[in-house]
Amino acid sequence: MNSFKPLYDTEEIKKVRLGPFYKYYPDAEKEVKHLEYDSFLLDMNSNEKKIKTHEIAMKIAQTGVLRVEELRDQPLLFLSKLMNLIKLDMNVLAKFVIHYQLFGGTILELGTEYHHKIYFDDINKMKIVGGFAMTEMGHGSNVRNIETIARYDFQTQEFVIDSPTPSSTKFWIGNTSRYGTHVVLFCRLIFNNEDKGVHGIIVNIRDMETKEIRPGIELGDCGPKIGWNGIDNAWIRFSNFRAPRLNLLSRFASITESGEYITKLSSPGKLFQITISQLVMGRMLYIVGPPAYLNVAIKNTFRYAMQRRQFGEKEKPEELLINYPTHYQTLIPMISNVFALEFSRNVIVERFPESKMPDKADSYNAIIGGVKATVAEYAIQSISKLRTMCGGNGFSAYSLFGYMRDELEVFQTAEGDGTVLFQQLTKHLLVEYRKWYKKEGVKGYIIKEVQSFLDTSNPYYTHSRSIPYLISDEFHLHAFVFRFEKQRSILITKLSLLKSKGLTFTQSWNESLLDIQKLARYYTQLFCLESSYLCVKKCVDPGSRSVLSNIVKLYALTNIENDFGFYRNANFLSAGKALAISDAIRDLCVQLKPFIFELMEESFGLTFPDVPIGSTSYIKNMSERVGIPPYSSKL
Amino acid sequence: MNSFKPLYDTEEIKKVRLGPFYKYYPDAEKEVKHLEYDSFLLDMNSNEKKIKTHEIAMKIAQTGVLRVEELRDQPLLFLSKLMNLIKLDMNVLAKFVIHYQLFGGTILELGTEYHHKIYFDDINKMKIVGGFAMTEMGHGSNVRNIETIARYDFQTQEFVIDSPTPSSTKFWIGNTSRYGTHVVLFCRLIFNNEDKGVHGIIVNIRDMETKEIRPGIELGDCGPKIGWNGIDNAWIRFSNFRAPRLNLLSRFASITESGEYITKLSSPGKLFQITISQLVMGRMLYIVGPPAYLNVAIKNTFRYAMQRRQFGEKEKPEELLINYPTHYQTLIPMISNVFALEFSRNVIVERFPESKMPDKADSYNAIIGGVKATVAEYAIQSISKLRTMCGGNGFSAYSLFGYMRDELEVFQTAEGDGTVLFQQLTKHLLVEYRKWYKKEGVKGYIIKEVQSFLDTSNPYYTHSRSIPYLISDEFHLHAFVFRFEKQRSILITKLSLLKSKGLTFTQSWNESLLDIQKLARYYTQLFCLESSYLCVKKCVDPGSRSVLSNIVKLYALTNIENDFGFYRNANFLSAGKALAISDAIRDLCVQLKPFIFELMEESFGLTFPDVPIGSTSYIKNMSERVGIPPYSSKL
Repeated sequence: MNSFKPLYDTEEIKKVRLGPFYKYYPDAEKEVKHLEYDSFLLDMNSNEKKIKTHEIAMKIAQTGVLRVEELRDQPLLFLSKLMNLIKLDMNVLAKFVIHYQLFGGTILELGTEYHHKIYFDDINKMKIVGGFAMTEMGHGSNVRNIETIARYDFQTQEFVIDSPTPSSTKFWIGNTSRYGTHVVLFCRLIFNNEDKGVHGIIVNIRDMETKEIRPGIELGDCGPKIGWNGIDNAWIRFSNFRAPRLNLLSRFASITESGEYITKLSSPGKLFQITISQLVMGRMLYIVGPPAYLNVAIKNTFRYAMQRRQFGEKEKPEELLINYPTHYQTLIPMISNVFALEFSRNVIVERFPESKMPDKADSYNAIIGGVKATVAEYAIQSISKLRTMCGGNGFSAYSLFGYMRDELEVFQTAEGDGTVLFQQLTKHLLVEYRKWYKKEGVKGYIIKEVQSFLDTSNPYYTHSRSIPYLISDEFHLHAFVFRFEKQRSILITKLSLLKSKGLTFTQSWNESLLDIQKLARYYTQLFCLESSYLCVKKCVDPGSRSVLSNIVKLYALTNIENDFGFYRNANFLSAGKALAISDAIRDLCVQLKPFIFELMEESFGLTFPDVPIGSTSYIKNMSERVGIPPYSSKL
Repeated sequence: MNSFKPLYDTEEIKKVRLGPFYKYYPDAEKEVKHLEYDSFLLDMNSNEKKIKTHEIAMKIAQTGVLRVEELRDQPLLFLSKLMNLIKLDMNVLAKFVIHYQLFGGTILELGTEYHHKIYFDDINKMKIVGGFAMTEMGHGSNVRNIETIARYDFQTQEFVIDSPTPSSTKFWIGNTSRYGTHVVLFCRLIFNNEDKGVHGIIVNIRDMETKEIRPGIELGDCGPKIGWNGIDNAWIRFSNFRAPRLNLLSRFASITESGEYITKLSSPGKLFQITISQLVMGRMLYIVGPPAYLNVAIKNTFRYAMQRRQFGEKEKPEELLINYPTHYQTLIPMISNVFALEFSRNVIVERFPESKMPDKADSYNAIIGGVKATVAEYAIQSISKLRTMCGGNGFSAYSLFGYMRDELEVFQTAEGDGTVLFQQLTKHLLVEYRKWYKKEGVKGYIIKEVQSFLDTSNPYYTHSRSIPYLISDEFHLHAFVFRFEKQRSILITKLSLLKSKGLTFTQSWNESLLDIQKLARYYTQLFCLESSYLCVKKCVDPGSRSVLSNIVKLYALTNIENDFGFYRNANFLSAGKALAISDAIRDLCVQLKPFIFELMEESFGLTFPDVPIGSTSYIKNMSERVGIPPYSSKL
């Protein structure tokens, strides 16, 4: 095997991988590093875990290291701090995210100066512990239909809050069943017998002195979960509970002292959109965590594979796991995927201001949803795979695969279920396409189709399998664009056909869900590829850029390979070309193998302490961990 | 949608699905049903779980319901009892399997009457608690290279047992760190300074009265794991530990009082093979568990999807989850897979006697490995998918997805890692092929190749997409056989090419691992399909047979669809035919949807108690579970 190691500059690669975080990282590190943390909270029941999580979180919060205002003033610094805190147990991080970002961030965005002044100091030090009370037993991702109501009482200038049905019981409300003092409650405002739609109200659920639950509220714990057992998720039911008028988060809609409902927004629907768009910051956090964990999981698997020997030639030492193609042809493409996900995260983070621009917010929110759904799913599946690649030693809780998988699990459905987010993305893509079509007209459409037809029906093109061509960015980008556009055309044809059969729009849409999901996935992959190109282009050192570029090529090719069925069915590839792609993948893996692991580690050296399989000697480290005494031969 | 419900006989379907277990089921049920069991051991740390697991296991064992001898005399009754005990926590079952099957079963198979008489009564009542001490820190699946040694001392007629290196420390030995009294120890017998290979010796590790660990043994717990935390897995180290001569499991090799080593087997390698073949029964158990769990997981997901509404037409009730194609086109093919896995399990169980026939054992052991690897992987991936299909409510520990996934996790690597088992299967397949080739000669080979070429290069064939043809068993079987044979030919070509380049056999083999894995997977799928045909054919009721046959068709078609890339690259399918297959899958799903869930439930009604999402009202059941008081409207 070729063991040529190219010249690259680790710091340059780190710069590109961290992207917008790079310049905040040292400051974040400084702020965070004096904190002492315990190691991961393994092997606890949920009661023990809740106690320990709270204890650690309070200790850290009281140092003032995290501040709600930073979400507005220095969001990248805030995120960089969280990234630096990854050695904390995920439960502690989750508690912070719920408290600072979901609870605090909502007050920041939907509240006014009045609320900020009253609450922020106490939130920053966690004197107030906050939750985000949106989900109900009957409604998760479909927030628009939540049932909890707040009837405005003109007399007392209060909201009277009620849970009108069993299914309106708030459920899964984090930070609330045991330690929370407040929640931002999402409910329908009934004003003058009129349903004004979903509003957010700050509700103080426990007496600040006695910590007793306040009258009119019943709440309890939701029980154990797959992960996040350190979080005290609650069910909450309201009965004739009263909250003062000024607790309404009133930036976009308020009630005056004289009993007037005032809003600049045209409709409850518009208000709902603005309210819900606050979830964007949360989704951004959800994009940051999984690749970070996956980095660690890959690194540990690699280190184990560099020590562990299994089978091999007779009379020779057994072979290292890393030298088996089942190992390196899984690990290296996985690294290329992690890089692509990091690059898409960087672009999303850089474009975060767009989330507030009226003409760009829709597009931004749509793609962030697609990436969020993709990242969580990919990370969990990959971590599961990595665990089996470490055999029995992957099964040890100390290897952290189980920990990472379980703690990431909720990322797949919280703050937007993947299936729903993909639908939102596709809806946006179709709206955009309609706009384009209106502008370009039939003529533009035909030109485009003809071009695509010419490209792909050209036998030279579908058969061409020269290596330089197969590994060219041009080919990859075309393949991704083609797949997306082809799938869009398949979907539009299907929707039209169903509509022509007399189905309503909703019926046609639902019937086409599999194609809808596919389109969103394809677009997200395209976004990852384009983001990768954007990020790699920024790399000023030619050697480093060339290495990164090869990693992106591997990402693109494995992605195409995983979808050979689609490409072949669409006549985009000949059989021979497809097989040549598989060969090119193997060659890229062999070429990258001698240095990519080192490169990955050095350019973003996330380390979890004390993982035996991730240490230089897993036998020694594992022995220490489980109390096997040092070996002294008596033979 | 077509809501035609065909006539079928639930009992007939049950008969086919349970196959060889069917007639033992009632007896097993009777023996088991008077036992009282606790519900699943959720939300415990590993210490609590170990205590509870042991407590339940002891209580049940003392009823005498499980008996080692049954593994020989009535293995199907034994297995049926375990299947009936599925409502027990998996940790209790695991404890039984390690104790009765791995420990007891090894004494049964490798020991003699002498051992049976001494140990079986105490094993059956768990007065003796046994473990299976094979794996070492340095060696898992590669048992042949274990390092623990037992030097025979002629003077005292004892084995002197030592762990010569750190990596020889026994690791992951179940039932041992806390409660075990004995293990079957696998070690190299050094007899007269000669290495006689791997032997099994019964070792009493704890004093039966005081439960103190005996001198010469150091042991401790391996720490928390992803699952099976109720099992006390130990590391063990021996230093000059002595075990009497008669503790050698001496059915195939013994040492006489006068100090002679006697064996009828030609070589240590042969003895090793026989020793290791005892793992077959364990692998059979590993094939039984995952489909059973998956049945429950699918059932619960389905029941939830029949209640939970999300989105839909304006002004109408929201749509039931089950009506979304993302739901039913995932669930129904999954059911068809479960059936195919059950059918393959049935055939494997029926053919169990082959595992002892010299001319059939190799073939049998090879395929059981392939199925074991496939079943575990499929079940875990599917359960993970099902969890997300239940959204936030799937995240609750009470939904049992996390429980099932974690407790099945070890199935992927214990008793043979999937990657290794697939290699063993492929090796066997190539040996068989060489035999065939030797018999048929070049002429036979050419006839076969020409036939295959004619079949698939016939444009009528590759393009044919009439529905009756696409859903015919003939087409499916041909597709599966073709895929397997094509992949075999790809692999053989690759191996020859690498050999011609000067690589050793081991090097060529390792270089080809991805194709080796693929071949084993394809063969296993073919085995599942053929097993399905075998089982369905036994169904005497035409209506039931027709339904089962459609389920198998769906299994076959989704399997082909998942591999469109391969089929298209091999020119087995035209693009149009591929797309017609996807349409046929959708049609089959729509056709089966009105009744398949009911059919699945009724024909093998595994029920786990108290799963809120699996109850008739998850809101009511979940409310009770987490203590939400009954709702009384005060509005």
